[in-house]
Amino acid sequence: MGSDQGPSVVLEGVERALAKDAELVVLLAGSDEEVTPFAEKHDRVRTVVSSEVIGMDEHPANAVRQKKDASIVRAAAAVKHGEADGLFSAGSTGAVLTAATFGIGRLKGIKRPALALILPGLDGHRTVFLDTGANADVKPELMVDFARMGIAYAQVALDIQEPSVGLLTNGAEDTKGSELTLAYHDILAHAKVNFSGNAEGVDLLGSRFDVIVADGMTGNVALKSIESTGRFILSRIKDSVGASKKAALGALLLKDSLKKTAGELSGDTVGGAVLLGLSAPVIKAHGSAGAGAVCAGILAAATAVRGNLVGKITEAIQVG
Amino acid sequence: MGSDQGPSVVLEGVERALAKDAELVVLLAGSDEEVTPFAEKHDRVRTVVSSEVIGMDEHPANAVRQKKDASIVRAAAAVKHGEADGLFSAGSTGAVLTAATFGIGRLKGIKRPALALILPGLDGHRTVFLDTGANADVKPELMVDFARMGIAYAQVALDIQEPSVGLLTNGAEDTKGSELTLAYHDILAHAKVNFSGNAEGVDLLGSRFDVIVADGMTGNVALKSIESTGRFILSRIKDSVGASKKAALGALLLKDSLKKTAGELSGDTVGGAVLLGLSAPVIKAHGSAGAGAVCAGILAAATAVRGNLVGKITEAIQVG
Repeated sequence: MGSDQGPSVVLEGVERALAKDAELVVLLAGSDEEVTPFAEKHDRVRTVVSSEVIGMDEHPANAVRQKKDASIVRAAAAVKHGEADGLFSAGSTGAVLTAATFGIGRLKGIKRPALALILPGLDGHRTVFLDTGANADVKPELMVDFARMGIAYAQVALDIQEPSVGLLTNGAEDTKGSELTLAYHDILAHAKVNFSGNAEGVDLLGSRFDVIVADGMTGNVALKSIESTGRFILSRIKDSVGASKKAALGALLLKDSLKKTAGELSGDTVGGAVLLGLSAPVIKAHGSAGAGAVCAGILAAATAVRGNLVGKITEAIQVG
Repeated sequence: MGSDQGPSVVLEGVERALAKDAELVVLLAGSDEEVTPFAEKHDRVRTVVSSEVIGMDEHPANAVRQKKDASIVRAAAAVKHGEADGLFSAGSTGAVLTAATFGIGRLKGIKRPALALILPGLDGHRTVFLDTGANADVKPELMVDFARMGIAYAQVALDIQEPSVGLLTNGAEDTKGSELTLAYHDILAHAKVNFSGNAEGVDLLGSRFDVIVADGMTGNVALKSIESTGRFILSRIKDSVGASKKAALGALLLKDSLKKTAGELSGDTVGGAVLLGLSAPVIKAHGSAGAGAVCAGILAAATAVRGNLVGKITEAIQVG
């Protein structure tokens, strides 16, 4: 139910995902009038009929506690009870994180789940980036868990067997950073995580690291700075289109390429961010996600289930 | 002397700045063979002949201490002795910060100078953003100084009389942030700085704030994330140019607009970052700055001198 554009976009995304993945079965949590007719028309769709919805403007923890029949709460419960293997939502980030964390539960050994996104990069490279906002304050010892969860996700989603790990800070040299990032550096350098040193903001959409870790404050600022830049460049192109016929034609000819790049930057191409550290994969798309992003997000959840993401994270954490 | 492309680019920038500003006088610090012939050919150019240069790969503090006749050290000394009113360099950031801080000296009441950049935004808006990397660790009480210095710079450089101040963190709500940014929030909310609340990464190239403050770790990551995104989008456009004739023509027609936007994002349009909190304005351009950026940087230093940036900062700090 949680999408800025209403549930129909999500249903269209489900339809596309079912068409692309012949073994996928979707359990739809939502209102009777939305999910029941859809399930009647489609094979491999089952339903959890729920009567409540958590809006974007509600306090996540309070809403999850009070609205026991909210679609996201019921969906998380279905995963908990083994009726589904993973969760996808385009609803309120806070509500998804809270409902999933309390409803599905954390993996043994994981103190703080983290939100990871696959960033596009140069020369076809892709980078798993976490934490993009689940934890504003991160103690150094938790950074090792983040690195291990990122490695497991890079193995499953990017098929990289020994991913390199970088730490996001303000300079490439080992001595660069705040007291906190220097402590992160020190603990990562002594952990078994294939640590390759400090990463900078320029490496996020680069090609030097397979996994980049940060606390959720820094990660969130970085991610939204990337978003801001994409939006800014697009607005400048629009300005020039208004000012010159030559530029207008240029933008028209480049439209497909620009649109594709915007989708890559927004995370829509990969379907959304994944919450790592729970007993099942959870994918959270933008509220503004279109049917394509919803489809990609559902398929990403299926990939994570089939690739045994949760088992790989469990193993990685136990190694430490 | 400090430019990736060699001193001739800097000299070309000086030439442009002299042509644009009829009252500008430039004191050139550099090797005899570079600066003397140039000064002979130009009015309003004087020289400080120096025999050493600090390279990009040298340890800044050591190099500044040992190379007493480095161009940047001599330039800072000239400002200290009143032979020049401001400093511009495209050399190593560390060397410029160190030479300027020790050579020119901090303003009374300023514990930590900060590096500010004017960011482009939506609808013609511009935002003063600091600290972009001079201080990795920033105590809460210093954030008030950063806000005051940013306000003074917005007044002088952007001609905004009562600039609004935002704090960069991971959410717009007052309760969002790490323990550290919550402490920043608290102290800013109780200071006389026209504090407008939390800013997010999306606001950096936006239009909601006139000044955005952050510690230098977060600020540097954000700035380099912006840089990374610009580079990424450009690389994607290049890829599409290689793949399709239609896109190639589109990129050609949009070239001027894209180039201008890239210049805005790199800071070249505004000439570089300004080091705030010293007894004279100091502008630091990218090592890769072209003649246009050098010209803009020199003119920005002149604007800061004429607008009495240092006096305005002194006043603002004393108010507190």
